[in-house]
Amino acid sequence: MATYTADIDVRFRDIDAMGHVNNAVYATYIEQARTRFFRDVLDLDISGASTVLASLSIDFRRPVELDDDAVAVSVEIADLGRSSATMTHEIRIGDAVAAEAEATLVAVDPETGEPTPIPEAHREAMASYRDR
Amino acid sequence: MATYTADIDVRFRDIDAMGHVNNAVYATYIEQARTRFFRDVLDLDISGASTVLASLSIDFRRPVELDDDAVAVSVEIADLGRSSATMTHEIRIGDAVAAEAEATLVAVDPETGEPTPIPEAHREAMASYRDR
Amino acid sequence: MATYTADIDVRFRDIDAMGHVNNAVYATYIEQARTRFFRDVLDLDISGASTVLASLSIDFRRPVELDDDAVAVSVEIADLGRSSATMTHEIRIGDAVAAEAEATLVAVDPETGEPTPIPEAHREAMASYRDR
Amino acid sequence: MATYTADIDVRFRDIDAMGHVNNAVYATYIEQARTRFFRDVLDLDISGASTVLASLSIDFRRPVELDDDAVAVSVEIADLGRSSATMTHEIRIGDAVAAEAEATLVAVDPETGEPTPIPEAHREAMASYRDR
Repeated sequence: MATYTADIDVRFRDIDAMGHVNNAVYATYIEQARTRFFRDVLDLDISGASTVLASLSIDFRRPVELDDDAVAVSVEIADLGRSSATMTHEIRIGDAVAAEAEATLVAVDPETGEPTPIPEAHREAMASYRDR
Repeated sequence: MATYTADIDVRFRDIDAMGHVNNAVYATYIEQARTRFFRDVLDLDISGASTVLASLSIDFRRPVELDDDAVAVSVEIADLGRSSATMTHEIRIGDAVAAEAEATLVAVDPETGEPTPIPEAHREAMASYRDR
Repeated sequence: MATYTADIDVRFRDIDAMGHVNNAVYATYIEQARTRFFRDVLDLDISGASTVLASLSIDFRRPVELDDDAVAVSVEIADLGRSSATMTHEIRIGDAVAAEAEATLVAVDPETGEPTPIPEAHREAMASYRDR
Repeated sequence: MATYTADIDVRFRDIDAMGHVNNAVYATYIEQARTRFFRDVLDLDISGASTVLASLSIDFRRPVELDDDAVAVSVEIADLGRSSATMTHEIRIGDAVAAEAEATLVAVDPETGEPTPIPEAHREAMASYRDR
């Protein structure tokens, strides 16, 4: 199984009044990993991709601080349905897991907004990143 | 049962390249509702409150757009443990549900970072917002 | 002279590790005031308006904190050229000025990106908000 | 003269409904360059540094897009006073200048908030980055 990982720099603006990376920014880190996965693995610009995020869940394990400099966000395909894909993610600082997350995306018809089958080429490209 | 709702204005900056409120901004809307609930119901400044967010999950039902002007985010207490509380939220535009979410918070000792019992006064104040 | 003012709620996410509203968020407050001015005064959706921001300058006078709850951002037209308009802004907390700012916008042809005359109807609508 | 440059990755979340990096995000890019300059040149954590941003001005030259992947933000010291320093910045995509900016910082006494002399060691370290 192939593993995809995106390295993302922590910005000062990511930190909130508690002194840690704000919870909403984890969603941004995950989105950024997804954006690069789309570009690198599916050869797709995510703005042009006709997909919607159906759900997102994040378990926070430890805080991320500015001094951590960067996080690594992994992308694995946990489930690959006809029109939807569930990605799982770890956000790591070195070997430490800062968060685990799961996101479900649905391919939609750009005209109707209705779910539509994931194109075969994308399905094949994603299949190599299945987590089992 | 009492219901707490925070009205939050949609900003141009909340919108992403897809033309909709970005997924990470839903986490910000939920955090803002939590911030006001802490202030109004618990008489607490959330920056000073010794709580950490343990998990967050969001189900996206329909996009929010700039023209929607504002969202209403409800806060209900779904579960109230010794040191943790689970809040459920609806993000609504008028009568339409844009998202449903669940967030689990843990009270921690500011010195050790270890879970600590929720103060009795906060427990009582939150109890009126139990969702059943 | 008419004065246009937008009231903008301060969010917990606007605060940075210093405990104050982050400097970049002032640009967002100003943008939000501009967005509402476009909607209310020019009857324009700013996303569809063919204008670009040419410059922005902000003088920071005092910090804004979460407890301030909201800021009021004024919009005045300091200069109205053939294809450009300069807006001046005060960001106030009650009577206190937190920041003063100036933004220059240029109307552009959506096809070529070249400067284009401001439509006469917009010019007239803006003229009532001239600061002298 | 030494030149300091920070490379900053463009994130999907930086893009707004116009399809370009939002104007407020330029302030974040500049802040991030300043944060790294403080760390690398002054050996200072910017959250702990007792400085306030007095003013910021940005001239936007051309849009930055997601496809640009990253920007390079230069830091030069244009003026070094007793208690204040003015930094000038270019935000570049390859050889193209996307924006030019100027930021004035003031060293303040953490107790009183009043301007205080810039420590001699910091003054010397910054002097090597004077722009003339």
